[in-house]
This record gives sequence, C-alpha cells and structure tokens, in this order.
Amino acid sequence: MEEYTKGRVTIPTDVDVVEETLELIEKWGADAIRDCDGTDYPEALKHVEAKVYSTYYTTRKDNEWAKKNLDEIQQMYIMTPFYTAVGSKLSVHLMDHLYPDMLKVNDRDDITRWWEIIDRTEGVTVPASQWSYDAESGDVTIHNTKEFHEYTVSFLAYIMWDPVHMYNAVTNGWSNFEKQITFDVRQPKTHAYSMKRLRRYLKDNAHVDVIRFTTFFHQFTLIFDELAREKYVDWYGYSASVSPYILEQFEREAGYKFRPEFIIDQGYMNNPYRIPSKEFLDFQGFQRREVAKLVKEMVDITHEYGKEAMMFLGDHWIGTEPFMEEFKQIGLDAVVGSVGNGSTLRLISDIEGVNYVEGRLLPYFFPDTFYEGADPVKEAKTNWVTARRAILRKPIDRIGYGGYLKLAVKFPEFISYVESVCREFRTLYENIKGAEPYCVKKVAVLNCWGKMRAWGNHMVHHAIYHKQNYSYAGIIEALSGAPFDISFISFDDIRKKPGILDEMDVLLNVGDADTAYTGGENWTDEKILSAVKRFVYNGGGFIGVGEPAAHQYEGHFFQLATMMGVEKETGFTLNVDKYNWKEYPHFIIEDYKGEIDFGEGKKNIYALDGTKILVQREKEVQLAVNEFGSGRCVYISGLPYSSENSRLLYRAVLWSAHGEKELHKWFSSNYNVEVHAYVKNGKYCVVNNAYEPQSTIVYKGDGSSFKLDLEATGIYWYEI
Amino acid sequence: MEEYTKGRVTIPTDVDVVEETLELIEKWGADAIRDCDGTDYPEALKHVEAKVYSTYYTTRKDNEWAKKNLDEIQQMYIMTPFYTAVGSKLSVHLMDHLYPDMLKVNDRDDITRWWEIIDRTEGVTVPASQWSYDAESGDVTIHNTKEFHEYTVSFLAYIMWDPVHMYNAVTNGWSNFEKQITFDVRQPKTHAYSMKRLRRYLKDNAHVDVIRFTTFFHQFTLIFDELAREKYVDWYGYSASVSPYILEQFEREAGYKFRPEFIIDQGYMNNPYRIPSKEFLDFQGFQRREVAKLVKEMVDITHEYGKEAMMFLGDHWIGTEPFMEEFKQIGLDAVVGSVGNGSTLRLISDIEGVNYVEGRLLPYFFPDTFYEGADPVKEAKTNWVTARRAILRKPIDRIGYGGYLKLAVKFPEFISYVESVCREFRTLYENIKGAEPYCVKKVAVLNCWGKMRAWGNHMVHHAIYHKQNYSYAGIIEALSGAPFDISFISFDDIRKKPGILDEMDVLLNVGDADTAYTGGENWTDEKILSAVKRFVYNGGGFIGVGEPAAHQYEGHFFQLATMMGVEKETGFTLNVDKYNWKEYPHFIIEDYKGEIDFGEGKKNIYALDGTKILVQREKEVQLAVNEFGSGRCVYISGLPYSSENSRLLYRAVLWSAHGEKELHKWFSSNYNVEVHAYVKNGKYCVVNNAYEPQSTIVYKGDGSSFKLDLEATGIYWYEI
Repeated sequence: MEEYTKGRVTIPTDVDVVEETLELIEKWGADAIRDCDGTDYPEALKHVEAKVYSTYYTTRKDNEWAKKNLDEIQQMYIMTPFYTAVGSKLSVHLMDHLYPDMLKVNDRDDITRWWEIIDRTEGVTVPASQWSYDAESGDVTIHNTKEFHEYTVSFLAYIMWDPVHMYNAVTNGWSNFEKQITFDVRQPKTHAYSMKRLRRYLKDNAHVDVIRFTTFFHQFTLIFDELAREKYVDWYGYSASVSPYILEQFEREAGYKFRPEFIIDQGYMNNPYRIPSKEFLDFQGFQRREVAKLVKEMVDITHEYGKEAMMFLGDHWIGTEPFMEEFKQIGLDAVVGSVGNGSTLRLISDIEGVNYVEGRLLPYFFPDTFYEGADPVKEAKTNWVTARRAILRKPIDRIGYGGYLKLAVKFPEFISYVESVCREFRTLYENIKGAEPYCVKKVAVLNCWGKMRAWGNHMVHHAIYHKQNYSYAGIIEALSGAPFDISFISFDDIRKKPGILDEMDVLLNVGDADTAYTGGENWTDEKILSAVKRFVYNGGGFIGVGEPAAHQYEGHFFQLATMMGVEKETGFTLNVDKYNWKEYPHFIIEDYKGEIDFGEGKKNIYALDGTKILVQREKEVQLAVNEFGSGRCVYISGLPYSSENSRLLYRAVLWSAHGEKELHKWFSSNYNVEVHAYVKNGKYCVVNNAYEPQSTIVYKGDGSSFKLDLEATGIYWYEI
Repeated sequence: MEEYTKGRVTIPTDVDVVEETLELIEKWGADAIRDCDGTDYPEALKHVEAKVYSTYYTTRKDNEWAKKNLDEIQQMYIMTPFYTAVGSKLSVHLMDHLYPDMLKVNDRDDITRWWEIIDRTEGVTVPASQWSYDAESGDVTIHNTKEFHEYTVSFLAYIMWDPVHMYNAVTNGWSNFEKQITFDVRQPKTHAYSMKRLRRYLKDNAHVDVIRFTTFFHQFTLIFDELAREKYVDWYGYSASVSPYILEQFEREAGYKFRPEFIIDQGYMNNPYRIPSKEFLDFQGFQRREVAKLVKEMVDITHEYGKEAMMFLGDHWIGTEPFMEEFKQIGLDAVVGSVGNGSTLRLISDIEGVNYVEGRLLPYFFPDTFYEGADPVKEAKTNWVTARRAILRKPIDRIGYGGYLKLAVKFPEFISYVESVCREFRTLYENIKGAEPYCVKKVAVLNCWGKMRAWGNHMVHHAIYHKQNYSYAGIIEALSGAPFDISFISFDDIRKKPGILDEMDVLLNVGDADTAYTGGENWTDEKILSAVKRFVYNGGGFIGVGEPAAHQYEGHFFQLATMMGVEKETGFTLNVDKYNWKEYPHFIIEDYKGEIDFGEGKKNIYALDGTKILVQREKEVQLAVNEFGSGRCVYISGLPYSSENSRLLYRAVLWSAHGEKELHKWFSSNYNVEVHAYVKNGKYCVVNNAYEPQSTIVYKGDGSSFKLDLEATGIYWYEI
C-alpha cells in the first residue's frame, strides 16, 4: 500500500526550538508551522518549506488601544447571587465572588436602562427609583425591599482581563506580563481601528501564509472567582457578546424593548440546557448576522493581502455558529478546532463552506502533561483512536498540535507515536477523500437547538465530563463514528415542515426532562406530537434516552408514554399496580457480554402493559422496546460511550428501523472493531478501537466474511 | 410492679372455636369478642363475660335490596387508558382491563352529562355530539377524531361486587358464595331503608354491645383487573364516592358546574401525591359534611338501642376524615383500625372526639400467615415492637386481633407470645394513661394536606412498601415514636395564619418535587416563602428531605435553595463550578456507626458555598446543614426507617432547634433503646426496640445516668 510521507500536519514552534522544528517537519511530514499564545515565531523559520500560520488576536493584545478607548472595552452581563432582604433595605456588592482584575462594573452607560434589579420571589423588576449604585463602594442599595424576598442585580461589566489570556496565564504560571484587555471590535471606533490594525499586521508579516483568527469578537462565557478559579463556563455562552451599542441595534432590529433578563435568564444565562426563549433566539440570530458581516470584512482584507483566513473554533467564536446559514457566506478559507473526542471532531469536520478544516489533536504541549515521568503517549493514543472513529465518517483535512515544542521533544516515544499518527492520517485521508462512507440508516436527533448545536449536545465546556451529561453525551459520541447519515433537527424544523420526518429512518430524543435536549413543553404542542407519532406509526423508529419527551401534562410525564410503552413514576401513579417486569432477550443486546452500563441511568421508569423489557434493575426499567403501529420504539435510560454501548446503539437503530437483516453488511462481529466502506473509492477499512489486539469476523457489503486478527488500535485498508 | 391481668384486648371468634375462645379470654385477659367477614358469632358465647362486637356492613350484605334498587347501587368514576386515534374514528371498549363481575357501566343516567371524553393531546373536552355509546358492544365511538391525538373516556360504573368482599374472597379462596353488591346509603331510597335495616339489626342482636361499622358509605378506590389482580388502589381515594345524585347536590353547594374531570384528574384520580385542586378540596369538604351527617344518624340510632358505635378505619371509610372538624361532632364511641407500623398506629391513636380507640394488631389469623411450618410469632413481634414505639407516645386504648381463631390456636408459641403482649400493653397503658409524654421539641410537617393526611403522608395503601415512598415514609415512621409534639400543617394553614409557625421549633418538608408532599407551585407564593424564611431567620429549624420546596421558578429548583444551602442540578447550572465537597463531622451523625442509609437518596444535589456537607457520595450531597440568620437548616436526601436513622432524625431536630444541650435528657446512648418519660404520672420507661439484648446508658430528666442491660424487645418501667 502506498505511503504518504508528507503533508496535512501542522506543528507549533517557538524561538528556542528552531532545530527541533526543522527535524519534526521531516519526521512528522509537517507542511505548516504555527505560533501559540505566549510564543513567538522564530526569524530563522520564516523561509522554511512550509506554510506559516500566525495566531491573530482580534480582540486583544493591544492594551494601548484598549486603554485609550475604555468605552469600547468588551462587556458581559453578570447576575449577582440571590440575596435575601431581611429588612426594608438591602445592599449588594456587585463584585463579590468575582476575580477583581478581570471585571469592572460598567456604570458609564445609563445603569437605569442597562441594569435590572429583580425581586426573584415575585419575579418582578424593581423600579430604578427604588435602587441606587455607589461607585465608590461598588454597592447597589435597594430600598423598600420586601422582607424575606430574594433580589438579584443584573449588571454590565467590562472585561479588563481577557478570560482565555487569564486561563493561559494561570494554567502556565506566567509572571511579569500585562493583563490583556478585551476590546469590542463591533463598536465604531474599535471597528475602524481593528481593520487598520489587521492591515498593518498583514503588511508587517509577509512570511505568514495563514492568519489564524483566535477568534473574532466575543468570548464564550468564562468567569473566574475571587481565588482565580473557574467560576462559570459555557462554551456556547452569549452573555459576553453584549454592550449597549450592540443591544440598541438589536432593539431596533427586533422591534421590541430590550431587557437585561433576555440575557440573564434568571441567572441561567441561556445556557444550552435551557429551552431557548424567543428573545434569546432573536438575539442569537441578530448576532450571527452582525458577526458574519464583520468577519467577512476581515476575511476580505486578509485575502487582499494574499493570505488565507482561518478561524479557530473556540475562544472568541461566539456568534459565528459554523452550522448556520450566515457562516457559509463569510468566505473563510479554513477552520481549526480542538479535538477532544469524536463529537468535537465532527463539530469541525461537519462544517461546510470552507476549503479545509483542521483538527488540533491532544495533548497540548503544556507542562501539565509533559512533566518529568509523564506518559504523554497514552493521552495521545486515546485522543487519536477516539477522534479516528469520527474522522472515518467525516474527515478533517489536516491535523495539528499546539503548545511548547521544547516540552514535547523531551519525549522521544511521543515524537515517534505522533509520527505514526501522521502517517496513518495521511493514508486514511487519501483513501476516503471525496467519498461518502456507507450509511446504513438516516438518523435524526431532535431537540430545541437542531443543527445550531449539532454534535454539541450535552456539552458544557467542550468535551469536559460531567456526572450529569456523560450518559447522554455518550449517545452523541457513539453517533459521531457510526455508519449513519446523521442530522440534528429542532422542534421548529418540524413545525415549519412536518414532512421533514419522512426523510428519516430513526428519530432520537436524548436527555433530562424539561431541558432543551428533550424539549419540555414543546411536547404539549399537538403539531409536534402528531408529527412524531405519525412518523412512528407509519413505520419510523424512535429511540428515547433518559427522560425523552418529558413534561408533566394531561396525565403523562412522558408525553410519548403510550407510544414508547414506558412512563416515569413521579408518585402520581404509585396507585397503579405494575405487573410487567419480565426481561426478554433481544436483537439489540445480542452482542452485550456482561452487565449493561447505563451510566447514571434513570430511576423510577416502568413499562406499560405490552412493552417488552430488555433490562430492569430493582424494578426500574433501563431498556425496553415497544411497537406502535408499524413503527418501533426503544427506551434506554442512559448510555455512556464505550465500544460495547456503541454497538448496542447501532443495533437499536437497526432494530427500530426494521433493519435487522442489514446487520451483516460492512460489519465486525467484535464490537471493538468497526468496518467502514467508501464504495465510490473502492476502499474499505477495518479498524480496531481497542488498545489490545482483537480478533473478529469481518462482513463485507455482500455479506461475505473473513476472519481477521488486528493489532492494538490497528487500521487495515482493503480494496472492495 | 403491679400486673394487669385482664382487659383492653379484643379477640375474634367463630362458631367452630367456642372452647378455644373461652380459653383465650382467660389467657389473654380479653374483655371483648368480635366476629369477622366470613365468620359467625356462636350462640354459646352470647352470654359470656365480655363485650361483644359485631361487624356491621352498612353498604353490603343485602343483595336482595341492591338488586331491587339497581339505580342506587354505589358508583365510581373510571378513566379508560389513553387511546390513540389513527384515523377519523376511534372505538373504545370501556370495560377493557377491568374485572368484568366487579363493575357495570352506568348508562342509566345521562351519559352526555356524567361522562367526559377528552382529547388529551390538546386537553379539551370532545362535545357529546361527536361521540356515542353502544350499550350492546360496550363501546364508545368518537367521531371526527384528530389523527394521532390521544383520547380518554371518563365514565361512571356501578360497583357490582364490593371490592373488599372480592379481596377477601380471592385472598381466602372462597367458593360458593354470592358476590356482595355495594349499595349507596347516601341515596334516598337506600338511605331510608338502611336506617330501618340498622334498627332491625340492633333489635335482632340483643347480645351485641358494640356495632363495629365496616365502615360507612364509600369504599376507598380499589379496582381489579381482568385477571382479578389488584389494578388500582388508593387508601385515600374518593373516586368511588360519587353518583349523579351526590354530584348534583355538590354542584348546588359549590355553585359551579361539576365536571367528571374534577374526580378523574387526568387519570390520577386526585391521589394524595397530587397537589389538590380547589374543586377536589371543595368536593372533599362537601363529602365530609354529608358523610358526617349521615354517620351521626346511624350512631344516634345505635345509641337509641343502648349499644356503642365503633368505626373501622378502612374499607368504606371515605369521607369520614377522623382528623377533621366534622368528625368530632358525629358522637362515635370508638374507632378501630389496623396497625401496620408506628405511623398507622398514630392514624388511630391521634383521633380525637371518641371515647376510645383500638388497634387491630397483625398478623391477621389468615391462612397466608398461619400455614403449617409458618412462624407467625416473628410477624407478631415485629408488629408489636413497631407499634409500641408509637403507643408510648400516644396510646391506643385497646388492642385486638382479627381473622380465624381456629388457625391461631394451632400455634401455641404464638398464643403464648400474644399473652405477653397483652400483659405488656396493659401495664404500659396503666402507667402512661392521662399523662402527656415528655416532648423535647415542637415539630411540624408542612405539605398540601396538613392535618387531613396526618401520619398518612407517603402512604398509598396503608403501610404498603413502595420503592418510591419508603425513603420518605421513614421520616413519618421515625416521628411516630419520637419525643416531639408533632403537627401536620398545610400551606393554606400558613396563608390563613402565618403566625402558626411561631408555635413551632422545627418545620419539615419531605418528598419529591411537584407533589403534594413538598408543595410544588405553593412555593411560588411569596406569602409561603416569606413566612417560612422569616421563621427560620428568626431562629427556627428547617429539615428538608428529598426535593423540599422544589418547583422550577425564577432561577431556583429548590425555592428555599438560598436558605437550605443546597440545590438540585437539573442541567441548568452545569456551567457553575462547584468546589464545596468537603465533608465535616457533626452533632447530627455522632451516633451513626457505618455508612448512612439514605434509602433511594437523591441524585444531583449540590451544596452552595458556605453550606456544611456531612455526607456526599460521588459528588452528590446526601446530608448537609446550613445556617440562615439565627436559624438552622438540614438537608437529607432520604431516610428509611431504622433505629439508627430515627436517631439521626432526632439529632437533626435537636440541632436545627439549637437544642444540642437537651440531648442527654430522657435519652439512651444506644439508638436501639429509647426512653419515654410521663412526668405527670411520675413514671418513665426504657424500651429496647431491637430483637437482640442491648446495653445502654440511660439519661434521666436531670441528666443523671445509669447503665442498663436490656433483654431483646424488653421494656422497663421506673418511678421518676
């Protein structure tokens, strides 16, 4: 088989590792070099045979400008904690529990218009005449408070230390540096200045081929507490994309009066678990359009100077929304993003409208991984094997690394492992490029967000684990590498076009009750209920995970209880005797060897009569199936990602779509091994996702099979 | 110490056990004899030296009358399952999944008025013009249905086989008997007849001293399925207390139009977990008044004949509500009830307005316990030790047994154990009668029901275990034997008189979110929130168990989150970093030896900053304390009943009420042993609740102490 020795790889550099950089260009076949936050590009490498990427900080690294234009420093909305009034007056210190150097209260703008004090006990706004702010003490004092009511203050604050800069400084223990202020490129003076600044940079950096924007204008929500610990993080958060200047524009476009509460959202800040309000969706749409317009301006300038514009998917990326229509019109050349797992890989690789996408693999060459005695190969291997599953479904075009090269070169095993990754990636890419991989079924994930949060469901801060999300995120992770044609649709998509479901084989609804991921009161809309039931009744598949379609209403907690054949015991049906507890063997669990891992699972689920239970534990149903008309439903209480669970989901999709007979097609009998076919290219591969050697029977597209022994994490390519 | 050899004990008899009855009267010191369902009172015992109780079935055992007056047979509301329309017409067979001999559809009355067909997808009533009923097929056909909407039919059915009679017949395998029809004493002809019938009975049974009514007019909700299995049971259910005759009266009293949905309640039948609607509370009030009026009529007649009127707390007891005002005015002589545990004991012993109350201890002399090789002593011992805890706080006046004596006499060890129970009870009663036991604190349980469901919280069918209720019912059970002055108050009690809380030391709120036991949206009422917070801020104690004060609103899931210092992670605050996980030793858990048993516990609870965690498991808080103003709060995720958990709750009450210094007062160092003082009578006892011998240090009221070794289940009496 042909070996691809060069290309599709980006490496970091710094002034102190010129030799090592040149060596790695050879070894890893790198064709691009990048700098990082806190590094500089060495003079000696300016004319090397590789593309040069340069990180460009659109909103920071220019404190001189920021300090001269304090009114155009980036702002964010903050809500104080809940304070209880115990008398007729209540004083609230706004900066309590916030890192003092990061934020500065904005009392420059009209606080009576842009701040909001809310009596949370009654849910009413306190009139401005009843409160005052003392800039010296930093306290808001609320008068005529009602005893034992709780109050919150929503206020605007300037971002005096860029949160990502702060994160990098704290994580790496930097000292002797200036805290970078975030300025707001959306505002008029800074807008004009930023375009000039960009032009100057482009002119001054002739050696640079690719401007890697990090990123554009608005940081995702990231706040630190008084001890410099992370206090609040929402990778999708829009609360740091605001300013009176922007909000006045929004008000004009929306045609209704802005309220801080549109952003504050009871303190939940419209995080993706919240069922989005109309006002927040309006605001996001407005931001998408405005951000796209301004990004395009920068991209056009970049092109003017003969350079490529690359966007980093992260940091100040808010408003870009790569899966939405506005994004495609920007004209960006490339997107690069960090790859935490299969889902985050597809956050990048599913983006349309750019020439290429690049994945920054882990680990970062940072001292927290590359210390004496550490084993960075382990993390690299896990990262690669996990990402590869998704790459095989939808490839990124390039891979790359970040951090301090001088740290990595001290680990020769790591250097050598990455060399093999680069070779493997190039081969893989050549084999699959341009060909749709074989898809057995069309699967849609239904929630409040649809395509805007595709692959990002149940994600708080990139691929970070939470006890409350891994049992649901596992479904998305399994899908990221599964041979399905996958889409993410919203309730509004169904409302706009109920026939959208006819294009699907299987519909999924995954998550906890009354969150955006299951849909909450959307399930009281007869349009939604009828469309979903019609789809299933006519032969469609439905897989509900956790508390699907859950919202207490008209005699059901699960609004699809009758269809799914399961319901949650909330106490309201304890009076009903439940006799259906027998477990049955089933196609879906045929490959499972031991106890099924449902992760956090769910308590108090019971099956209605006629439902077939596959697994119940102490009379709590974990897995059950039910037929409804010609359709089939599967209930799963939770499913963390593992090869075995991924196989379970695969079989659940096949069964619910009446596809049991299609099982032995591009299939491996061993669930640690997967088979992907690229029919157009006449290639298929067999890939071992496990860290130990595996044996399996490989089934080809025509059902013929052969036995295969695979080495640990091995990938084997064949002609069809 | 004096031995009380005679009295306060009732035993069952039958025609075939005359000798044995006489023997047991001696042995157990019985002073009353009773018959049972399915037994007859022997002629030979009519003049024995003991009171004679006779069960009287107000609503059944007279099929001749029932059959002659089919229009006055007792009725109940039934809702069909949810049926999905898949076309424009839907046929529903009303009797599906119901035991055919038990119920008969009532189409005698105007079905367009008394039935209701509801489109549950939209929550709207289908006009009568769009549906019809075919008596022959038993089907309701709904026309112009909306595709994929769900429909239910609410209808009235006659009770053609009394549910308790059916239960007794099925359980005991009776054959060759006539199924007893339940007639409705509230209706005019049956009312008049029933009074005559009672008079006739009283006249014909001169040997009877006590008429034990079993019970009055309306059976709690109890339905069987097509296989004669229990299908639905609600010991507090009102859905079998209806008829057009009654509902028309209700309509007139309430002043608004009756709807079947008032009773059907989306199919949840207003079970006690449901937050009661105004209409249901109105209906219950109406029933209480009407039932009390009619019961009084029967009691007065009973008195006319020189006999006592005793009410059985169970079966057809619906509408009597012994803790409500109407009950006291009836003039009943006595109440007898089944004792399942401490809570059910206090359901009986806390009743006011009667001369005496009697507890029917377990086991029933039924073949399911008294079969060859069985050990009925074990059940008897558990029942007695469990009940005794509560008796020592609030005594019943008598104990008794039920069932078939001929079964029990075959077990001499049982006969001898009960002999000791009878002696122990008499001694206990003499020692404590008339004296308030020492109470260390005043404790109130707050929920939607208040005193109407006192001691019956989290109860589905008497003392039956459910996975979903034992972790909460354990709190009520612990309280039933604890040295507190306990009351049950409702949200309306607070609304009517916010100062009610000033009379309390500690307030409890126990159960799952959005149920009647925690209160749901009552917690969005600022009157409730302010009253509770004021109470605690000023020094009161608050103990929240499970999901206290939970209802999603204005930035909190737990509406008392700020006060309690704990909140539930619903996904909406996953963005918030949580650093407070350290566990602390504490007064509350000082006596706990191993892993604390929280029963089902709760997932996803986290502590706010400043809250002191006593126990968290895998970053889920199970037990935590927080101070609020001068008050103290305790959060417990769940607490099944055990001696060790009871001690934990005792300490939690003391701590939250600032009563740590009162610990060593009428106290036992060993949690299996309890000390109760009856200061007025100059007595106190030390009681071993364990089934093995125990050693302890006993602390008296003045703090002085002594060591004591106790035999298994032993009780020791002392003079103060």
